[in-house]
Amino acid sequence: MSNKLKLAVAGVGNNILALCQGIKFYETDGRNVGIKRADIGGMTPHHVEVVAAFDIDAEKIGQPLKRAIFAGKNNYPDLQQDLSEFALEVSAGIAPGGDQEGEINRVADILKSSSAEVLLYSLPTGLQEAATAYALAACRAGVAFVNCTPEIVARSDEIMQQFVAQETPLIGDDLASHIGTSIIHRELLGLLNERGITLDSSYQLNLGGNADFMNLREHGGTKQQSKMNALAQEGVDVSNVEVIPSAGFIPHLRDNKVAYLNIEGSGWAGTPISIDLKLKVQDSSNAAGVIIDLIRIGAAARRKAMHGFIPAAARLLKSPPGGHPLYADADIDASFADLR
Amino acid sequence: MSNKLKLAVAGVGNNILALCQGIKFYETDGRNVGIKRADIGGMTPHHVEVVAAFDIDAEKIGQPLKRAIFAGKNNYPDLQQDLSEFALEVSAGIAPGGDQEGEINRVADILKSSSAEVLLYSLPTGLQEAATAYALAACRAGVAFVNCTPEIVARSDEIMQQFVAQETPLIGDDLASHIGTSIIHRELLGLLNERGITLDSSYQLNLGGNADFMNLREHGGTKQQSKMNALAQEGVDVSNVEVIPSAGFIPHLRDNKVAYLNIEGSGWAGTPISIDLKLKVQDSSNAAGVIIDLIRIGAAARRKAMHGFIPAAARLLKSPPGGHPLYADADIDASFADLR
Amino acid sequence: MSNKLKLAVAGVGNNILALCQGIKFYETDGRNVGIKRADIGGMTPHHVEVVAAFDIDAEKIGQPLKRAIFAGKNNYPDLQQDLSEFALEVSAGIAPGGDQEGEINRVADILKSSSAEVLLYSLPTGLQEAATAYALAACRAGVAFVNCTPEIVARSDEIMQQFVAQETPLIGDDLASHIGTSIIHRELLGLLNERGITLDSSYQLNLGGNADFMNLREHGGTKQQSKMNALAQEGVDVSNVEVIPSAGFIPHLRDNKVAYLNIEGSGWAGTPISIDLKLKVQDSSNAAGVIIDLIRIGAAARRKAMHGFIPAAARLLKSPPGGHPLYADADIDASFADLR
Amino acid sequence: MSNKLKLAVAGVGNNILALCQGIKFYETDGRNVGIKRADIGGMTPHHVEVVAAFDIDAEKIGQPLKRAIFAGKNNYPDLQQDLSEFALEVSAGIAPGGDQEGEINRVADILKSSSAEVLLYSLPTGLQEAATAYALAACRAGVAFVNCTPEIVARSDEIMQQFVAQETPLIGDDLASHIGTSIIHRELLGLLNERGITLDSSYQLNLGGNADFMNLREHGGTKQQSKMNALAQEGVDVSNVEVIPSAGFIPHLRDNKVAYLNIEGSGWAGTPISIDLKLKVQDSSNAAGVIIDLIRIGAAARRKAMHGFIPAAARLLKSPPGGHPLYADADIDASFADLR
Repeated sequence: MSNKLKLAVAGVGNNILALCQGIKFYETDGRNVGIKRADIGGMTPHHVEVVAAFDIDAEKIGQPLKRAIFAGKNNYPDLQQDLSEFALEVSAGIAPGGDQEGEINRVADILKSSSAEVLLYSLPTGLQEAATAYALAACRAGVAFVNCTPEIVARSDEIMQQFVAQETPLIGDDLASHIGTSIIHRELLGLLNERGITLDSSYQLNLGGNADFMNLREHGGTKQQSKMNALAQEGVDVSNVEVIPSAGFIPHLRDNKVAYLNIEGSGWAGTPISIDLKLKVQDSSNAAGVIIDLIRIGAAARRKAMHGFIPAAARLLKSPPGGHPLYADADIDASFADLR
Repeated sequence: MSNKLKLAVAGVGNNILALCQGIKFYETDGRNVGIKRADIGGMTPHHVEVVAAFDIDAEKIGQPLKRAIFAGKNNYPDLQQDLSEFALEVSAGIAPGGDQEGEINRVADILKSSSAEVLLYSLPTGLQEAATAYALAACRAGVAFVNCTPEIVARSDEIMQQFVAQETPLIGDDLASHIGTSIIHRELLGLLNERGITLDSSYQLNLGGNADFMNLREHGGTKQQSKMNALAQEGVDVSNVEVIPSAGFIPHLRDNKVAYLNIEGSGWAGTPISIDLKLKVQDSSNAAGVIIDLIRIGAAARRKAMHGFIPAAARLLKSPPGGHPLYADADIDASFADLR
Repeated sequence: MSNKLKLAVAGVGNNILALCQGIKFYETDGRNVGIKRADIGGMTPHHVEVVAAFDIDAEKIGQPLKRAIFAGKNNYPDLQQDLSEFALEVSAGIAPGGDQEGEINRVADILKSSSAEVLLYSLPTGLQEAATAYALAACRAGVAFVNCTPEIVARSDEIMQQFVAQETPLIGDDLASHIGTSIIHRELLGLLNERGITLDSSYQLNLGGNADFMNLREHGGTKQQSKMNALAQEGVDVSNVEVIPSAGFIPHLRDNKVAYLNIEGSGWAGTPISIDLKLKVQDSSNAAGVIIDLIRIGAAARRKAMHGFIPAAARLLKSPPGGHPLYADADIDASFADLR
Repeated sequence: MSNKLKLAVAGVGNNILALCQGIKFYETDGRNVGIKRADIGGMTPHHVEVVAAFDIDAEKIGQPLKRAIFAGKNNYPDLQQDLSEFALEVSAGIAPGGDQEGEINRVADILKSSSAEVLLYSLPTGLQEAATAYALAACRAGVAFVNCTPEIVARSDEIMQQFVAQETPLIGDDLASHIGTSIIHRELLGLLNERGITLDSSYQLNLGGNADFMNLREHGGTKQQSKMNALAQEGVDVSNVEVIPSAGFIPHLRDNKVAYLNIEGSGWAGTPISIDLKLKVQDSSNAAGVIIDLIRIGAAARRKAMHGFIPAAARLLKSPPGGHPLYADADIDASFADLR
């Protein structure tokens, strides 16, 4: 079996732009800069080959992928890689309304004829109907499905049963961030608590220049709750902690994300402790650094004829079905060591 | 048995100024602000009673403790507590040179007549002879000894054997910080490493206005090495990490400590990640928040007739005898639960 | 003539809470901490005496001022001053709707009987009708009027003509900030420009915990434009500058305001320059520090029988009638030196 | 007359590395990024042609300039310019000791045969003998001299008289920074003072990875005084301001300079104001951005047969002879407009 990983992508956004350039980057980089695992199941990042791509943006449909990834609102930086191998044409994606059943079958046919092993779902947040449709298409084609978004797919019993029946892996929901504001904020609050410092107040602001930050500025309620949940931990009282998922849409930041944290606490005899932190990251690199593991887990699981949810993926997801504690023992390396 | 903890102190510096004010603060504070453990062996922070104090500063000798703690170079803030109960007179400490043997016996006699349970050694760093002399005095008086400094006392086989022979506890060496730059820096570097981010470079600067920062500016070599050691952990390459123990002596900061951290890393496809952090803490509160646990451990161990090094203290020290791994299982609460 | 300044206030919000406490603070402070001018027309800050106060909040009406200033949403810190002299009862203010003409006369009568020299208008932004009504009441009572808000009062020809006819001073509109984000941002952009650094991009975020920041988060459009205008200057291209008037409402910040600035530029050969700044200020102190000058200008002008707009006030206002250039030569000290 | 500027350089350090790369950068950059004046006396930055270079570093002597600028401790970034035109060989510089008179004549001969118009002196700080020798060589060759360092050259009456006698321009001493910590710190302190904010305390830390920061860590006394002088201004009490010229030598910063500023003040009623700022700049770009103007002034002045000190250069220098006020009226553009 070749160690090429045949990938299909639904949504040609910043994540895919980051992914494609990284695939080429790791072809020459020998140090595995910025990734946790060089090898999963015999596959390294540069083994990924994109064999199908779907989008509904007229600027992208029919274009070769290497051009489509720079179109529309995509604004991840151009890393000056040679992308000539990403020549396949972007197919029309599943549009809202219309004959969903027919569309699902059309996409399933493309997936089959492309020999895709995994379908990566990475559309903008909030399109539950599209997420379900792509999942069903993958299921019919016997292709592993990876859901990067908070839409309910792996947590849907109905969808999960179809994947189990088809003996196909279903991985989701919602990408954990590679290194984001939440994990840093959580670690600092936990550290202070462990040391006995009393938390007086804290806030977290997030800024960026991609489409997410424009949307979140207006509709940040769910995201705020999800980010507050990410901070919760035993012994830490978050009643005086404020999280602003989008403090500002700053177009010139493009795909960069900036976060500011402030923590005010009290130590011995009530004397003050303060921490101020600024974090700057490439937003879609944060996604791609996790996606690269999830798609390799999807392909490896499929090659091993595993089906349904794959426990080794749990810690790379925000909401695995049933919650994280179910999968505490799962280990990525151990799960697929036999494929190397 | 009363739960009053009878404490003797060698060195009346900022740490003791912080300690005395905190003892009163916790008499009225009901929330245990800024401390990890309300109770160790039946003793809360406000159970501490200072029964003897030693110093060689002419401004302090013969003064009531409540006045001596504000004399000399001490510059911890005045927290406006009623300190009238700290009325005992400061005794002359052990001066360098002269009849050390006679001095040790003199101090031992004072310790005995004061009924002290614990002698806290907290002189400026670098006075090995004084550290040894006070330890021997405590040993002869059968008083538990706590060494806050990096001088070699608990790690000296010779001294340790004398404490074991006298069936007296000996706790040291070198206070871990309550919440300091090193632990925050270490946690952030560890977090990035765990997530697969490649560390490109990092620096840490420390500033302050107390005597430590004046000394360290010139003689920071040992401290720098000790702080670099504190960052070391599996998987983290610190070759591009710089630590400046005293980047500046800033008198108006007084007993405040300010630290700046910068971390530059590379994520997916080599794209950059940067973290900038400013920490501001009350330096001697950082010490007092750990001292309060060590002296209670010393008193509780003595009450239980334990002797030699007390394993439960290990994680509150930078250099316990034989190193941390020896004491991994020790638990403070479990060790002294029977005394409550 | 006594140098007591008899002041009436419309709106008993944070600004008045800051003002009253400062009046007492400067009675004992000998250094004139935090104010630009100790004396205007013979009056120092502690010469201010509040002789009338209006509000429509049921929690405030009928209460002695010293209690009303801590009621409602006011959250400026309690500076622990003795406020017993602020014993006058808060009168019912002019409510929206109803018999405006009658209300204006009622307020004018109170102003007259209180011997007020100046009426300070400091209601929440956006109440044009109320601003006009209080201005007319002041005019009828022959009391100088100071408008802290962006409502159009001094810029209204119709209202101005009435003050001129009544030979009464009218000062407005909109308070300049004592030391705010805009002036710091403007100075830094100007400095880079003067040195030949090319501005690549910049952003400014403002956060706070008082009512302003809650309102601005939703309705920040006008404020954003006004803040962008404040940055404009010759030679500085602000097309890549983003200003977020309320990046977050953070309740625990209370009346504190926090701002973050970032400036990215290019120097010689296009090499990068970056500046990151955090500012923390007491928001209503920023207002009170300017109000204290405006009300003294108002009283001094009235004592000198000046009427209409008072040029010396122009630089303390965002929008003086006709714009700043008209008043470039006006000098506060020179204008009222004869009153000392 | 050609508008090529024929330049000789004494010292092939980071400044010259920055200068050469910038000369090429501005050949193609049409926006004059990062420079104040596109044209001085008809000369743009890319009109500079290096016709002679001197150094005593064995790694540099005899090498073509394009290679020598990357040798030794030079660590300004490689901007990937085509530097093939900088092919001239670096000549041996004037070494300390030995036959200074012979050396001066040797350098003067090289200057003459190279047709240099200006000699730029940019050796490490502290080499007074070398500065004098190169100045005398320039004088004998009739070449304008620009002194970038604090050594006393233009302020030496004896040297100045020789230049006047030779009818040659002499420009110095000590480069003002293009945009540095001092000017930003000074502007912020001045702004707070102008607004009436009372300065409580402030500090400024500077870090870097080039040779300057290694030297300054040990020998920063003079530099500290000079930096304190730079902050002095009417009305600003700097008694609580601390400046640390080299808070740390951080090798991985290379030629970058990082500065941290903190300012604590008091506003209305003594309420606090705090400002924290981080500045990051390319250190030698800061020098080159000023050098580019000084050498054009030197060449333009020589073409106009001006001699001695050139007033138009004063504001680009820290210590012009006699002090800045003497030259308040001098204007660069006006001085050389006739040469365009």
